[in-house]
Formats: sequence, C-alpha cells, structure tokens
Amino acid sequence: MNAVDIITKTKRKERLTKKEIDWLINGYVEGTIPDYQMSAWLMAVCFNPLSDTETLMLTEIMRDSGDKLDLSSIEGVTVDKHSTGGIGDKTSLIIAPICAVCGLKVPKMSGRGLGFTGGTIDKLESIDGFKVNVEFKDYVDIINKNGAAIIAQSGHLVPADKKLYALRDVTGTVDSIPLICSSIMSKKLATGADCLLLDVKCGTGAFMKNQDDARQLAELMVQVGKKADKLTRAMITDMNQPLGNAVGNALEVIEACNILSGKQKDRLYDLCIQLAANMLELGGKGSYEKCRRAAIEAVDSGKALQKLADIVEAQGGKKEMILDTSLFPTPVYSREVKTNCGGYICGINSEEIGMAALMTGAGRKSKEDTIDSSAGIILQKHVGDKIHSGDTIMTLYSSTVKDLTAAAERAAKAVELSAEIPNVRSVVLEVVQ
Amino acid sequence: MNAVDIITKTKRKERLTKKEIDWLINGYVEGTIPDYQMSAWLMAVCFNPLSDTETLMLTEIMRDSGDKLDLSSIEGVTVDKHSTGGIGDKTSLIIAPICAVCGLKVPKMSGRGLGFTGGTIDKLESIDGFKVNVEFKDYVDIINKNGAAIIAQSGHLVPADKKLYALRDVTGTVDSIPLICSSIMSKKLATGADCLLLDVKCGTGAFMKNQDDARQLAELMVQVGKKADKLTRAMITDMNQPLGNAVGNALEVIEACNILSGKQKDRLYDLCIQLAANMLELGGKGSYEKCRRAAIEAVDSGKALQKLADIVEAQGGKKEMILDTSLFPTPVYSREVKTNCGGYICGINSEEIGMAALMTGAGRKSKEDTIDSSAGIILQKHVGDKIHSGDTIMTLYSSTVKDLTAAAERAAKAVELSAEIPNVRSVVLEVVQ
Repeated sequence: MNAVDIITKTKRKERLTKKEIDWLINGYVEGTIPDYQMSAWLMAVCFNPLSDTETLMLTEIMRDSGDKLDLSSIEGVTVDKHSTGGIGDKTSLIIAPICAVCGLKVPKMSGRGLGFTGGTIDKLESIDGFKVNVEFKDYVDIINKNGAAIIAQSGHLVPADKKLYALRDVTGTVDSIPLICSSIMSKKLATGADCLLLDVKCGTGAFMKNQDDARQLAELMVQVGKKADKLTRAMITDMNQPLGNAVGNALEVIEACNILSGKQKDRLYDLCIQLAANMLELGGKGSYEKCRRAAIEAVDSGKALQKLADIVEAQGGKKEMILDTSLFPTPVYSREVKTNCGGYICGINSEEIGMAALMTGAGRKSKEDTIDSSAGIILQKHVGDKIHSGDTIMTLYSSTVKDLTAAAERAAKAVELSAEIPNVRSVVLEVVQ
Repeated sequence: MNAVDIITKTKRKERLTKKEIDWLINGYVEGTIPDYQMSAWLMAVCFNPLSDTETLMLTEIMRDSGDKLDLSSIEGVTVDKHSTGGIGDKTSLIIAPICAVCGLKVPKMSGRGLGFTGGTIDKLESIDGFKVNVEFKDYVDIINKNGAAIIAQSGHLVPADKKLYALRDVTGTVDSIPLICSSIMSKKLATGADCLLLDVKCGTGAFMKNQDDARQLAELMVQVGKKADKLTRAMITDMNQPLGNAVGNALEVIEACNILSGKQKDRLYDLCIQLAANMLELGGKGSYEKCRRAAIEAVDSGKALQKLADIVEAQGGKKEMILDTSLFPTPVYSREVKTNCGGYICGINSEEIGMAALMTGAGRKSKEDTIDSSAGIILQKHVGDKIHSGDTIMTLYSSTVKDLTAAAERAAKAVELSAEIPNVRSVVLEVVQ
C-alpha cells in the first residue's frame, strides 16, 4: 500500500477498503505517514465525502487507536450526552444531576475549550476546590455512589483523533461531516457508555449553520453509533442565539444552578428537560412522557440541585457554592450594552457574542492562556423581545480586562433589530433516531 | 494573512489576490508555510481550479522565486520548445539542429527523466564525451556559434517549482491543469527565449489522456505565455502509441540521426517537420509553408545532421557517432516480441511500453539509479500495420538485464490487435495559438 494511491482513490471518488483506512490512520498515528500526505487526504475527503461505510470503518479504527474505558463495574445503565458545541451551552451541568436523580448513571468526560468560552471542565473549575483530574477507579466510585461524575478526558484515549484534529485545525479541513462524525463518535465509543444522546447544534453559533447539514451529521452519527452497538439518538437544537442568559464560566455554573433550583424556566430549561427526557427514555426509564415528567419532578423537588452539590462535593468542590451561588466571586469590572433605538430583537449572532466573551477573558486564544473564571456576558434580552431605546440588552463582566469598550462594541454588533415581531425558532428543531 | 484563510478561500471557490498567492508561495519557499498546509491548498486547487488570472499570477510569482536567465547576448531570435512528455519523444534532438540551420537560435535547457526512460539530457549522455553541465557564458557562446545548445538545467532557477513539484508528486496533486501550466510556464519564462512552442502530448502515454484536457492545458499555457510577453503557440500531438521506432537513450539518439539524415520519413519525421515549421514561423522566418519547406530542405541537404554533429562537438561529444551511428555500443542482450496471431495493430499502450523500457534498464526508478544507455525497445510495427502470426512486433535490448522475459511479457501486453483496419490518428491533432 502507498499513501498516494489512497489519496488518489478518494480524490477519484473510489471507495477505500478497511485495510487501506487502517493502514493510513495507524501509519499516521505511528508517524510513518507524514502530515503533508494526511492533509492532502483530508482535503480530498472535504470534497469527496467518505461513504457511510467508510465513515463507520474510520470511526472504529480511530476508536481502537488507543485505550478504551471499561465501564462494566458501574451498576445500572450508563448514558452519555455529547454536544457539538455552542455558545452558552451549560446543559451537561444540568442534565447529569437530573438523570442521576432519575436512576441513570452518567459517566461524563469533557474537554477544555479553545476559543470563545471554556469547556464544561473549565466551567466546573470556577467552583473552589473542584478536581477535574480523577483516577479511573475513583471516577467509577463517584458514579456508583452519586449517579454521575464530570471529569477531564485523560490517558491515551483516541490518539488518532488528537493528531488528526490538530492537523485539520491548521489546514482548513474541519468542516467535513464524515470527519466531524468520526472525531466525535470515536471518542464516545472509546469512553464506553451504553447509551448516547447527541445534541447537534444548528445556527450562527454552531459548526452546522443550516438544518440540512445538521440533519446529515445527526443521521450519520446515529447510524455509526447503532452499528457500533450503542443505543444512539440525536436532537438538533437551535444555536441562532446564545443558549440561556449566561456566557462565561462561573456565570454559566450559576445559571445551571438557577435552572436546577427551578428559579429559571425558559428556553434553556425546556431544552434541558427534553434532553434529560430523551436520555432517560434511551436508558429504559419508560415512555418519553413518563421520562419528561420525571425530569421536571427532579427539578421541582429540589433533588437535582442537591445532586449537583453532592457530585461537586464528591469531586472535592465547595458544595455550598452550588446551594448558594452568591458565594461565587463578583467580577471586578462590568459594562452594560444599551440600545439607542427600539423594536424587536430578531437575531443575536452567537458567534459574535462568543468572540465578545473571549475579549472579556472568558476563553482561550491559545492553549497556554488562562481563563478568567468570573468573566463573560449576561444577556438581559433575547430573540423575540420588544425593546425600547435605552434598554440594557446585556452586561459584560471581567476581572482581568479593565476596559471593556471593544468587547461591548463587538457584542452590540451581534444584535439585530427589526420593526416587526420576528419568528422565534423552537429550541428543539428535530429528533433523529 | 494566514494560510488557513487562503486554503479556505480556494476551498470555497473564492479568488485569491496576487498578494495572497505571493505570500503563500514565497512563504513556502522560505519555509514559513509548512508542507502540510501547502498540500491541503494544492488538493483544494485540484478540486477548485485556479482561474486564468490566478494561474498567470502564480506562474509569474514562481518564475520570480529564483534567478532568471538573461539571453540578450544571444544574437537573433531565440525560440524554445517544450514537450509535456511522452514515450519515445526525441524531437528536441531533431528540431534544434533543423531550426539552427534555418537561422533561429535554440537555447535548450532540459531535465533528466524519472521513470520510463531518460530525459533529453540522459539521451545525449549516451554520446561519448558529451557534457550536459555547461557554464552560462559557454552556453551563450555555443548558441551564438552553432545556433543551438542543449544543456541540463542548473543554478537557482524557479526553486518554487522544485519544492512544489516534489510535494505534488507525493500527495496525489499532480494532475491539475493550472498547476501543470504554472510548473511548465514558470520555468520557460525564467529561461528566457523570445518565442515558445509547446508540444502538448495527448493519449495513453501522456499526462493528458483526452483531447479536451490537452486543449485546456494548451490554451491556458498559450494565454499565460502571451500575457508574460512571450510569443507562444501550442501543438496538441498524439501519444496513443510511442513516438517513432525507438524507446531508450542511445536508441533514440540513433533514431534522431536517422531522421536528420533523411533515411527515416515517417510519423516522427512528419511531426518534427511540423514542430520545426511552427518554431520558424513563430521566430519570424516567413509563412508557415515557407518555413515547412525550409525545414524539409535542412534535412534533405544533409545540413541538419551536420549541425547536430557540430553541436555535439561544441559540447565535448564525439561527433563521429552522429555521422556514423554504428559507433554506438551494441547492447549485449536482446529479445524479440513476436505475435502468435494475425490481424491489424489497433493500439500500442505507450505507458506500458514505457514500463517495459524501464524494466530493460532504460529509465530510473529512483533519483539514484543509473541508466543503461544502450537499453530500450525498437518497434518494428506500428498502429495500423497488418501483421501475421510469427511476425516480430518489437525487440527489447539491454546491457544490464540478462533475462528480458518479464519486460517482453509486459511489452507484449501493450499491443492490441483487431480483425479490421483501424483508424490511425494524425500525429498532429491541433494547433492552438
């Protein structure tokens, strides 16, 4: 076998065999295939997408490129959730305790964020003492005891994805549906839960800008998941505006607590209930309607908030901050973004809000950057809201950036106004199973 | 500027500015753009071809990446010819002396061959004493005195092409018409003749398998040449069978002498006369018909053969071998390929003949290989010939490969027979100007 022949086959829309994909991917991981041949192949894949069969083979080969977690010592059904990434997405912090209250086991390994805002792991680190690096044995123990744990991905899991993703990032080859699918699914198959719910974000702040692409990715991932013997389902959800009110790290943990305590019942709440209900149904907890009611009851009873506090405590964090969010440090600097005209908000470009949040210090521009936990944005208004001249649309916070003028200007530009009442898209657009 | 943005623009069919192409190419030559980003861009170009304007910009930027030759000290009009490469193509050895006899100056820099058979330079080295590495001053002197010189490319000419071509070769990105055009034309623009005739080969033994692609490449190169102020014309010529009788190195020099002495008047002769006539017309030597007659007369008078002998002598070679080709060493081993059925030859796959020639020792599998000068193939029959069972179709020669069985089997498979008289394609298919 040689790399040029394999590149040429994909370039000519000819199908690759499992042997060829295996040789290519493992050769790349081992260093016998150089970056420049892999990037040429990746670009060919962007133009001539892999078939579903090739994508499944690629995913399984990537999964098998490193260690795999064995979760068989966790009692009961394990259910994982993965989001393709959006602005203000703190749903993992909410649905993990809800599902745990309802009797599922939620083993969650998350990544750190690069760009915009932190990842789930960065958000949790805004809680004093919270440990994201946990030994595998302890991880299993915490899940067996509390129903859920959220830790940083560690060890030698899917090295093929690490190396491929880093290359895709610098060669303009990120936006290929089969490559996105294999990247996500190889990690999810290696981390081993019985069931998997995929939250495919769709809109201005997501990889998938339109619903057709989102559906294609969702269908492909569900198909790959099922063929690899995992109960898999996907939801396509709206990312045409940031999710919820908060964009940041501590700010998002606080908002998650507000949802779990039942204080905030909005689009974000609706989404979390539907996500949790789908996970519960996947995990065999009865009909969708029964699962939905169980999720609502977990919140209303106060059990879900207490569960998050227990998980935080089990991972070394200060549980009091969950039960009383006023214990989070207050950011030093703030700046309001006001409007100087009236009308209806018809759009809030999530990507631009993400960029503004990054400018407050809430994200990382490069791997070495440290995150300002308290930084970020609170949206006071959302798509569909009527506003008047002088209204505050959002407030920017930071403890590290004194002059928030540039960030505020960028954030202001993200807001689009119209004279007429706009259509507001549902938070859940489709379920793919 | 950053490489990912440039890659992404080409990927999205957006046009690049001259500044962007300049930054990309010169960054690559200097080493600030890594191979893996360049190969991703090259693959994107294979799918989304550069526009004509982008191709011209790329060509000029490549041309300017290194030294350029100043041929102004050559008296008279200089005319160069470039072939896109075929099996048995020894036309440079024939047309250079013809044009020199007719009053043009032919400054020819050629490459070595990799694969199949040697390049023009390798062929000339089969002449005892012939020097292909000549100082620029001596090169100009030889041309001023004899009308032509054929030397190896040297110095720091078009380093961008050297680096890009080496990368294209190992990343499956060779077959892009704008990239082929910029590779050929950047070198031809840097080596500086006033006029340029392009011989675009088309058929089984060429890069361009079909006439539409060949025409597209020819038109693009002519356009780029003219925009860069060079009188440029292209001929599309047949490569659905090897050119002439001989495939090899010494064997091809001998055949060139047979053409120049007027002993061999066949398809190869016709092609050479038309190539020379087009070069003469481009060089201002009168009407095409006048030029054609001058070319024929150069052969029939014996002047063209004598001219080749003079050029060989000027470059240190043994001129007697040109005037008496029996002085070339006879290959030690030979093997005839006979047919065991009758009919008409309807095809001879040039690429397969090239592979068989390589197996006799006539070419290089890697840069380090040495060529067997005497090795190669003489075709006794051609497309259109009627043959009977037992006829010899070709003979293989070698001084290094004792057992020519495998090579003979490969060569035999290249020949296609039919019961009916086949159509024989003209040797010149089109002229593009």
